[in-house]
Order: sequence, then structure tokens, then C-alpha cells
Amino acid sequence: MAAELTAHDLIAKHRPTLDQALEAIRTRAYWSPHPEHPKAYGEDGSLSLAEGKAAFDALLGTRFDLSQPGTDDFVGGEVSPYGPQLGITYPHADIDTLLPAMRAGMRAWREAGAETRAVTCLEILARISARTHEFAHAVMHTSGQAFMMAFQAGGPHAQDRGLEAVAYAYVEQVRTPDTAEWTKPQGKRDPLVLTKRFTPVARGIALLIGCNTFPTWNGYPGLFASLATGNPVLVKPHPRAVLPLALTVRVAREVLAEAGFDPNLVALAAERPGEGIAKTLAVRPEIKIIDYTGSTSFGDWLEANARQAQVYTEKAGVNTVVVDSTDDYKGMLANLAFSLSLYSGQMCTTPQNLLLAREGIATDQGHKTYDEVVADLGKAVDGLLGDDARANGLLGALVNPDVKARLEAAPGLGEVALASKEISNPEFPDAVVRTPVIVKLDGAKPDAEAAYMSECFGPVSFAVAVDSTGDALELLRRTVREKGAMTVGAYTTSPEVAEAVEEVCLEECAQLSLNLTGGVYVNQTAAFSDFHGSGGNPAANAALCDGAFVANRFRVVEVRGKTV
Amino acid sequence: MAAELTAHDLIAKHRPTLDQALEAIRTRAYWSPHPEHPKAYGEDGSLSLAEGKAAFDALLGTRFDLSQPGTDDFVGGEVSPYGPQLGITYPHADIDTLLPAMRAGMRAWREAGAETRAVTCLEILARISARTHEFAHAVMHTSGQAFMMAFQAGGPHAQDRGLEAVAYAYVEQVRTPDTAEWTKPQGKRDPLVLTKRFTPVARGIALLIGCNTFPTWNGYPGLFASLATGNPVLVKPHPRAVLPLALTVRVAREVLAEAGFDPNLVALAAERPGEGIAKTLAVRPEIKIIDYTGSTSFGDWLEANARQAQVYTEKAGVNTVVVDSTDDYKGMLANLAFSLSLYSGQMCTTPQNLLLAREGIATDQGHKTYDEVVADLGKAVDGLLGDDARANGLLGALVNPDVKARLEAAPGLGEVALASKEISNPEFPDAVVRTPVIVKLDGAKPDAEAAYMSECFGPVSFAVAVDSTGDALELLRRTVREKGAMTVGAYTTSPEVAEAVEEVCLEECAQLSLNLTGGVYVNQTAAFSDFHGSGGNPAANAALCDGAFVANRFRVVEVRGKTV
Repeated sequence: MAAELTAHDLIAKHRPTLDQALEAIRTRAYWSPHPEHPKAYGEDGSLSLAEGKAAFDALLGTRFDLSQPGTDDFVGGEVSPYGPQLGITYPHADIDTLLPAMRAGMRAWREAGAETRAVTCLEILARISARTHEFAHAVMHTSGQAFMMAFQAGGPHAQDRGLEAVAYAYVEQVRTPDTAEWTKPQGKRDPLVLTKRFTPVARGIALLIGCNTFPTWNGYPGLFASLATGNPVLVKPHPRAVLPLALTVRVAREVLAEAGFDPNLVALAAERPGEGIAKTLAVRPEIKIIDYTGSTSFGDWLEANARQAQVYTEKAGVNTVVVDSTDDYKGMLANLAFSLSLYSGQMCTTPQNLLLAREGIATDQGHKTYDEVVADLGKAVDGLLGDDARANGLLGALVNPDVKARLEAAPGLGEVALASKEISNPEFPDAVVRTPVIVKLDGAKPDAEAAYMSECFGPVSFAVAVDSTGDALELLRRTVREKGAMTVGAYTTSPEVAEAVEEVCLEECAQLSLNLTGGVYVNQTAAFSDFHGSGGNPAANAALCDGAFVANRFRVVEVRGKTV
Repeated sequence: MAAELTAHDLIAKHRPTLDQALEAIRTRAYWSPHPEHPKAYGEDGSLSLAEGKAAFDALLGTRFDLSQPGTDDFVGGEVSPYGPQLGITYPHADIDTLLPAMRAGMRAWREAGAETRAVTCLEILARISARTHEFAHAVMHTSGQAFMMAFQAGGPHAQDRGLEAVAYAYVEQVRTPDTAEWTKPQGKRDPLVLTKRFTPVARGIALLIGCNTFPTWNGYPGLFASLATGNPVLVKPHPRAVLPLALTVRVAREVLAEAGFDPNLVALAAERPGEGIAKTLAVRPEIKIIDYTGSTSFGDWLEANARQAQVYTEKAGVNTVVVDSTDDYKGMLANLAFSLSLYSGQMCTTPQNLLLAREGIATDQGHKTYDEVVADLGKAVDGLLGDDARANGLLGALVNPDVKARLEAAPGLGEVALASKEISNPEFPDAVVRTPVIVKLDGAKPDAEAAYMSECFGPVSFAVAVDSTGDALELLRRTVREKGAMTVGAYTTSPEVAEAVEEVCLEECAQLSLNLTGGVYVNQTAAFSDFHGSGGNPAANAALCDGAFVANRFRVVEVRGKTV
């Protein structure tokens, strides 16, 4: 079949973007080719806000066909955290038919080479970008994110992370040249001469196990890292967040086919309720790579049992902010209030434990007692969320009943400093929208430790009173070491404390945000510049995105000697 | 303490070498800074042949002290495969004392930065290089390699592999800049501005588990990759090959101390007979990286049980040569004869199974039947080893009684095409020196399969008769997939066969040498150019050396925000 998209055209179109991405990961300065503003879309073939909404609406209640081999049923039961049932069904696979079909296109995909694979991935991302408004609704109505966040985090930011992975994958594969002439002197005799050829080869089929809260943002790095390094990718979405990844798979299959490759290099594995196919797929011998975001228990299970695969996991952690002192008390409170509120604290990066010395902290507004700081933080959250429209726009909806249950149980853990409130959503009356709860805990009390040393995923934070900042740092160290952390924050005006908290983070391998008081938040990372997770503490065994995230997804085979 | 070696001086001395190594791994052209000829040593502070021998002799029968913390005994019982007892004892460690002491210097080693770590490693390698003649005897009298091989493979080639690992480690760490200024436009508002700092941080203590046959060549990549990425390294040598690594540890500790670092960043863990400390050490929580070369069973055990560590293993495999046809019959036979004989076939890269079509092969000397090819190969081996002095220089000694037992059992496996012969070594009458055995097997017979589908480590090869080259390729594929392979060789004049064997190697991830008829052998790889192993089949989970071998030995910690 003649390819509609030639490698030549794809290179001409996307190589400049790839080069910019390569430069960005080298300098780690700000860069993104994906506009963050909703109004930036609607021209040049991209869907406008209204078109995206219409495209999403048209999917509701339909059968989402992908023409995959071995489809034996259509399944699905997504219910939006905002209330409506999506009513979409997706292909359910006979994996004994699908997996061999996915391998069939591997040779051509390998022979295309690293550059063509990279620009083909960039074409997939470009088409996803053009449909960002459609994806925004899909992410919103599966994750419960508010529209603007679903648009940005599920759209451009996720696409950035995918592109970042492609850039890392590309540069890793071209570190070794395609060919080398090797001439070794032999004194007076003729030199030894050998021609060598080097080919990056895929490991096998990669399995992406998607998550409920950030199906695209957490899914794209693994998906694109695996695909760009030559591996077919089987996408197993979370049963409550299928649509964003199903749309992704559809776009990928379209682009692959148009570029003359086998569309089965990317496929979807939807499942019946309670089927638990991730466990079955993860130990199949064909599966050589697994990317997973989710619970610690299943992540640990994968690492222990999927021994035939390279396993990349992002699991749970307990994120800490050490509050020692500040020269911008208002800025600190506003920044923290936003971090606790965004997406109802349902981010793996949301701070959970705020560690404060019992006797209080020094600020630009004088000494503040522990009680004052906690009360002022509560007021800052109240102020931020005082307007229902703004609250809805920031909080989104609780993603599932487990989060709601944890939130409702939180007051039983200690003294409530800020109670959670119900917010009504006029557009979606069935959405469960709640403001965060802040609970005071005494760090010295053993029963409190059970609370603050476990991840309480959702809009629940603990203001933990400790004896001193030194104690806070020891607790920080222990928390990262035992429970892991995706993020650590700290506020201090003391160079000694800053150095000490940095040393804890360097020793325990956690990413640190220091004295954030403006429009950057501890729970947000920017692709091409910030690492997401460190890969060096129990919260995640990989970071997004670095050399280690891509280098073992392929191997290099050398052929040396005399070709015929 | 004032450092005798400043970072500035080390950089001035070694940066040019590092830069050349970086260029070599990029182009993969021939390069080495370590001379291969024994006569190249003896000037500029390096030991001459006589001085090296004297230095080795002076070690015999002594206590090898390293001034390590927690030394509770001195142990050792090495016996040279050439006969003599070495009589050297080494520090035995109380690991509860030694491991914490090894961590003490980590912060300073981290703060030194990637470049200073790299040039300090290069100083260690330079001092080892200057003592190559001493190492040659140490390797010879622990591995049983003949002197020239012990000199080259244990000296310059091992040092090359160590330097290669330092180069990969260095470049991986500097892919992310030390600092970045991140400025994100915000439309009409002020941009968001953040300063970010990035620090490569070690994972923890690395454990190197050495092997008997190539203590330095197989040990240096892991040792230097871990050390250059900031990790202390605990060296656990094979009980029969302690000296080469003990000398290495001594040099490393000297250089570290002179450069102002804690010498305990590198330490030795010798063991009592039967103590099996590798198993104990491997699961200690302080151990975060393990490099291992040895049996499949212990390698698999490490991968399954040392879950707290990154585990890099080189295990057993079954190496195959497909003989389809040749335009240089004599060259092929000579090349194969050398590969089978070198170090009595005790290399993880030595070919074991020679696959030949039953009806014979086409050659530049006409059609040769299966029987003729096997007989001619036997004659080539006989010719190569006909002179006892040359035979001793090529074969070395059998490394241990297990190898001898396997060699002696080989005639029971099939028809002997070439019988093994005893060679006497006038200098070392107790050395067990044997020529290789070649056994004919019928590939179609199930009882033969048990033989050729297992690794028979030592000077034993099987000439396996198959129905066709097509069958040979299927057997090659199955062998690599099920048993793994460090090397694959093939001889063919057919472009179709060459493509087919290459495709098998690409699909099954094995390194292929094609039509070698000159002075390069399938069992030898050159650092900076050839990959040793692929990391993609059961013989090894890593390749020497590539990005994946170093990228996960450290993590990058980011500190962003407002410093104090």
C-alpha cells in the first residue's frame, strides 16, 4: 500500500519541532509547541471549543470501533464524575489474536528507523493537539477535572510530556551511529578492518496501564517512549477513564496506517467490569514493557510478578511541605491554598502533610503561632473558593466514591481546622464537589502517625505540629524513605534550613520546591524542564522524563564483519 | 585534609582522554589509550615486565591489608590454576560496620560533581594501567588465562571497558544542566520565572560480584559506572579470583584519599570458604545496585530477590555459529579454530554449537560434506595447537575442576570428531591444559538436543547436523530465545541467508559476527566500538556498555524556586 504520509514529508513537517524539543530537554528552559489557551484552537484544522464539545457529544452512547483484530465484544460503563453516563462501548480483545497481530508490524516499524518513528509520533501528537477541545471533554468527564484543567493538563501539558518522551527516545537511539568503520593498527602488518552496523531493536509489546485521574498526562510518556523506540503499545485504560485513551489509540492507528505502517502497532484493551485484565496481560510473555500509574499495591505486584518486562511504576506517596519561616506570608498561604484545592487534591503531587513547629514560625508579618498559621491557611482556602463558580472551576468533581469516603472520614482523625464544604455545580447537579479539609495532628502522638504516614488521596491535608524544624526534617526524611514522595515543598528564610531541607531531598531523592509564593505550584511540573517524580524513592521507580525512562525500552544489535 | 590531587589538576590531566572516549563511543571507531603490547610498559612510572612479576611475587604469602573499617579477620585460599597456592589473605568485613562507613563519604563525592568524579576514576584507571604487568600475573594466576591473554584482556582491554563506563556515566549525568532559568510568558502579565538546580544523586552502595574467569574485564564496567555516578562500591570478588580486584580496590582507595575523598567509597568484601556472602550482601537495604557475572541460577536468584537494587547480570548462554557457505574455507576454519581454542573455550563468548547442513556446504574449495567440514575444523585446531609452546600460550589452564569434568564427560554425548589432548606446561607442571573437543551431534535426535541446548562451559563444541540452513536458523532462533547468547556467528555467501540470519539476530536480540576469516574473532569485543552482550536475550540483562547500563545508577534531584 502506498503511504499517504511519506517519511520525507513527516520529517519536513516535524523535524524542526523535534529539534526544538531536543534543545529544550538540554537547556530545560521554558518551551512548549502546544498552546495553553482554549482560544488558540479553532483555526488551521484544529477544533474550536464548540466543535470539540460537539465531537465529544457525538461519541456519547455509541460503539467506539477501532477495527482491531480479535475484537470479540464491545464493553464499557463509564460514568462521568459530573453525573452523566457516557454510554460508550469499546472493543474487547481476544488477546491470543490481538497480541500476535500487534507483533506483525514490528519489522517495518524497526526498519523505518528512529527519525521516522519520532516524526510519526509527532504527527500523532499534532493530530491529538488539533482535537484538544474534544480531549478536554473526554478527560473532564472521566477524571472529574474541571474543564480548564482537563483542557490544559489533559491537552497541551499531556502532549508536551508525550513529545518530551519522543525526544528522549530519539536521542537515545541515535547515540550509537548506524554504521562504523573500525580500523585497528597492527604495527607493521595490515590493520584489522571491520564494518559494523548498529540497529535499535524493540523489546516487544509494551503495555500501558492507564489511570483514572490523568489518563493522557500520565499515559503519554510511556506510550510514546515505547512506540518511538519501536515497540507496539497495548493500551489498557482504567475502566472509568477509557475515552481519552481510546481517542488516542484511534488517532495513532490512523496516522500509522496513513504512513504505511501496521495500525495494530497501537491497540486498545478495554475490559468488562471486574475482569482485571491488567493482571493477565502483565505476565504474558509477549509483554516486555509495562508503564503503570496507580496504587502502590498493584504497582508492587507488577514489579514483583511481571518479571519478563521492564516495569515503570508511579505509585502512591506522602507529599510533605516543611513550613519553617517566610518573608511572604500572604504569598505562601495563597500558594498553598491553591495547591491544596486544585482538582480537589486528587493529584499525586498534592501536598498532604504540612509540618509546622509547635511554637510557630517567623514571617514578614511577625511571629505566627501554629494555630494562627493553620487558621490563616484555612482562611486562604476559604477566600480562594468563596465564589462557587471559581470553586467549581478549581476543584472539579471527586473522581470516585473512595475519595469521598476518605474525605468524610478525615474529621475523625484529629481536630478539624478547616471543614470541607459541599459546593453545588449548577451545570452538573450530580457532581460531587467538595472543598478541602485540613486536620490538625500532633506529630508526637503515635495515633496521629498512622494518619499522616499513609497516603490519604483526595482533598485531605494534615497540619502536623512538630517540636522544631529539625524534627520536621527528620519526619520529612522518614516519610520520603518509607512512604515515598512525588513532591516536597519548603518555606524558609534561613540559609541553614534551606540547605538542610535540600540535603534531605538529595539524600532521600525527592524533588523540592522552595519558597513558592507566586503562580507556580508544588503540584505542577512542566515538561522539558521539571522532572515528575525522581525514580529514587518509593513513590515511583521512574522519573518523567529522563534517559533511564527510555534507554532500556530498546536494545542495540550490532552486525559486524563481511556482508555479502 | 588538603588533597594532594586537586580536581583542577585531575581535570587538566585526564579531560583530554575523557573527551576522546566520548568521541569514540559516539563514532565507535577504533580507539584505546591503553597499549596492548607488553613492551609498551616500563617507562614513565609504569612497571616493566620484570617489575610487574616482582611486584606480584612480593604479594604471595602476605596479608593484603586495606585499612578498611570493620575488618574482623583476614581470609583467603586462592590456588593458581597453574598450580601454586597464592597464600594471600584479604580483609574480611563486619558488614554492619563497613557499610555505614562506606556511606560516610557519599555527600562529598556527590558534591564533587560528575566531571571530578570522572577524572578521579580516570586517575584510578591510569594507575592500574601503570601496573598492568602486575595485574597480568594476578589475572593469570587466578583465571588460568595464558600470560599474554591475562596481560591484554585483564589489562588494557579491561581498562578500556572501565573507561568506556566512565564516559557513558559522565555524559549521562551532564545531559541535564546544573541550573536552568525558566521563564514562562503569561500574556500581558509578568512572566513566571523560576531558577532550577539539578543534581545527579547516587542510589546507594553498589555491590560488584566478581567472576573467576575475567575478574577485571567483567568487573570494571560495573565498578566504574557505579563509582562515576556517585555510588560507593563494595567489591565482592570470586573466592578463586580475589587478587586482581583487591589490587584494584587498593589503587582506588589510594587515589580517592589523595584526591581528598573518603577511601571507603571503594571497599573489598573477601569471604571465608563456603560463606556465600554475596547472598547476604545482595539483599541488604544499603545495597542499591548489583553487577554480577556468573551462573544463570545465581543471576536469576539475584534478579528475583535483590528487589531493593538495580541488578545487572551476565549469565550463561549458548553461542551458535551457523555455517552455510564460505568463499574463504581456510580463513573460516582458521578463525573458528582460534575461537574454539582461545582460553580453552572458557569465555562467555566462545561458540558452542556449530550448525551445519547434513548435505554439506559450498566453499571456494568446492562442496564440502558435513563430515569433511568437521574433520577439517579438527585439523585446523590441531594445526593451531600442534606446537606445545603455542598451545600453552593460547589455551591457558582449565580454571577449575568443573570445567575438566565437563570436558571429560563430553565424549559420552556423541561421536568425537576431535579428541581433547593433554598439553604439558614445562613452567607449571601442575597446570591442567587441554585442547578442545569437538563432538558430532544429530540436531534431529532428541537426546542430542539435551546436550546442545545447555551451556557446556569450557573447551567443548558441538558440530550439530541439521537438515538445511533454514533449519539452522530456526534452531538458532530457539536457542537464543530459550537459552540466550552472548555471540552469534555466521558464514554465508548468500545474500538471502545473510539477511535471514541477521533478521533472526535482530528479532531475538543477539550480537552477530558475519564471515569473520581474519584476525578478529567472534569471542572478542572491543570497548568503545563493540557491544558485549545485547541485554535483550536470556544470557544477560545488560550490554557493555550503553546508556541503559549507566542511566539508572543515579537519579536527578531538582530544586526549584527561591533560594535564600
